[in-house]
Amino acid sequence: MSKIFIDACKGKKTPYTPVWMMRQAGRYLPEYMEVRAQAGDFLSLCKDPEKACAVSLQPVDIVGVDAAIMFSDILVVPLEMGMELKFVKGEGPVFPHPVTCMEDLDKLDIEKGAKNLQYVYDTIKLIRGKLAADKALIGFCGAPWTLATYMIEGQGTKTYAKVKKLIYTNPEFMHALLKKVTQTLKLYLANQIKSGADVVMIFDSWAAALEESAYFEFSWNYIKELVGFIKSNYPDNPIIVFPKGISGYLDKIDGDFDVFGVDWSTPIELAKEKLGSKYILQGNMEPTRLYSKKAIDEGVDKIIKVMKNERHVFNLGHGILPDVPVENAKYFIKTVQEKTKNL
Amino acid sequence: MSKIFIDACKGKKTPYTPVWMMRQAGRYLPEYMEVRAQAGDFLSLCKDPEKACAVSLQPVDIVGVDAAIMFSDILVVPLEMGMELKFVKGEGPVFPHPVTCMEDLDKLDIEKGAKNLQYVYDTIKLIRGKLAADKALIGFCGAPWTLATYMIEGQGTKTYAKVKKLIYTNPEFMHALLKKVTQTLKLYLANQIKSGADVVMIFDSWAAALEESAYFEFSWNYIKELVGFIKSNYPDNPIIVFPKGISGYLDKIDGDFDVFGVDWSTPIELAKEKLGSKYILQGNMEPTRLYSKKAIDEGVDKIIKVMKNERHVFNLGHGILPDVPVENAKYFIKTVQEKTKNL
Repeated sequence: MSKIFIDACKGKKTPYTPVWMMRQAGRYLPEYMEVRAQAGDFLSLCKDPEKACAVSLQPVDIVGVDAAIMFSDILVVPLEMGMELKFVKGEGPVFPHPVTCMEDLDKLDIEKGAKNLQYVYDTIKLIRGKLAADKALIGFCGAPWTLATYMIEGQGTKTYAKVKKLIYTNPEFMHALLKKVTQTLKLYLANQIKSGADVVMIFDSWAAALEESAYFEFSWNYIKELVGFIKSNYPDNPIIVFPKGISGYLDKIDGDFDVFGVDWSTPIELAKEKLGSKYILQGNMEPTRLYSKKAIDEGVDKIIKVMKNERHVFNLGHGILPDVPVENAKYFIKTVQEKTKNL
Repeated sequence: MSKIFIDACKGKKTPYTPVWMMRQAGRYLPEYMEVRAQAGDFLSLCKDPEKACAVSLQPVDIVGVDAAIMFSDILVVPLEMGMELKFVKGEGPVFPHPVTCMEDLDKLDIEKGAKNLQYVYDTIKLIRGKLAADKALIGFCGAPWTLATYMIEGQGTKTYAKVKKLIYTNPEFMHALLKKVTQTLKLYLANQIKSGADVVMIFDSWAAALEESAYFEFSWNYIKELVGFIKSNYPDNPIIVFPKGISGYLDKIDGDFDVFGVDWSTPIELAKEKLGSKYILQGNMEPTRLYSKKAIDEGVDKIIKVMKNERHVFNLGHGILPDVPVENAKYFIKTVQEKTKNL
């Protein structure tokens, strides 16, 4: 059975523009909160394939999105490579012992990392078994740069002072770390696809931490290597990249991926002009528009005016916020599916 | 006596490109830490003209910058309009009672706000009296949007969920707040100029929180109103604007200001292409390059290659970080002044 989401990722004409939301399996859904409470904490939910499968399917069943994304977190990769990881309430994820020297780096294990992530592969298999045949399943990982930044900083940061001091004073060390993370991610994404992911997405959430020249050296080059590897081994599985906040140099982006995720801060006209002929675009509705149905209508219309129903996957330009009413999320999905019909 | 900094802001040819640093009167200087310790806390330092004058002059004397910027904080404006403000160690500034309703808004006082800021005007007068005649003095304020966001959110935020919910569900209220803040800022900047500021700078630190259409409606329109007012009353005083992180729509920026501050995330080539013929550009060295002299050399060369010594004021693309060695800050300033000579 043909999947409208996959067709759109490959540039085929579809009956309407498929739509999903980043963080669609998340805290705005009471059903998610219920399963999460049963799991105990966030990390236990990630490691429990049955429960992770259940929450991954919720937005498909409740909100009506065209694709499921496996429930997990980008930081399970450094965790399984050998780093202790804690999710501290109100503070977010913390690596209590960040990478500081070659000895720390040597302890990180590529093969073991990819193998220990079996619970993710099991989650994918479970979702695949239960997901309707016309819906797509998205796997994902963090970009090497974003993961390496967490591993160096140990936690969220406003200034990125530690990792940026490193790139300007000891770039060799940073490259050694990035290479190791990239190797692990190759195995990780390959295993996700082998387990049943139709498409994989690479989240470079901290892309905007770097100036242009540093971005290409420390992030984009590794993403290109990763997508090149996946594309050459799994040419039929579309790849989505999402480097957040780099609208100043979109024209320099290239590589063997299929879909470019446009964050809400990048005007969709600009993304179309710079990348729309080379890549399918995904995005880029401002997520806080979901607070108001009027703002949803205006936001959807604005994007449709530019993208029509051509070479586009509808999405938010960032994750849905926890206090968005479920009713508004449903309204957003239905509005997109109806307004893009027969365009 | 002619001021090289002012000449550059007006587009005149100067013997070298003048240079200063955002947060140049700051924690990387031991001499600053000493005065701050004497003052007690951050806010007491802002309110003490003698001490604020002393730290404003330090980077001129110690680091050799071409302009002093008055030591203060953008949040003294909402404070003096009637809001309680606390600087909590490790958490940054907090308004314990953020603006939530019309009643809160009605309590804010424009005239009293501008009048209560006398300590800022006194600081400027003191600096003016002590600053060398060939150095410029920069006054500043936060942009209406950035200030209003703090006043609504109550503190720093990652998601801007409160203020963005407001703009999409109750835009009239947000506009009422923005109008009131803008009125206060008109008086505030006018008083700064009357007290001796040669140039004023408007910091829109949270510009990147908004999508393009919302940015123009809720931020840029008010900046334009503010710069229009100042320019018509004080045509000889250059105005610098610094909307951080809006590289996706630089071509839509207009208004009656003189200098556009380019943050480090915006490629300087892009800023030059979109705005360089209409405005003088300021910036945009990546501040973390100051961790390494080699990175300083490369960063300065990269910018000089684009800007030569024409229609440009050198600066960091964001504030200097507290752990930058003073020696490196001096090296940056000297490098710019020497490399741009006779270009």
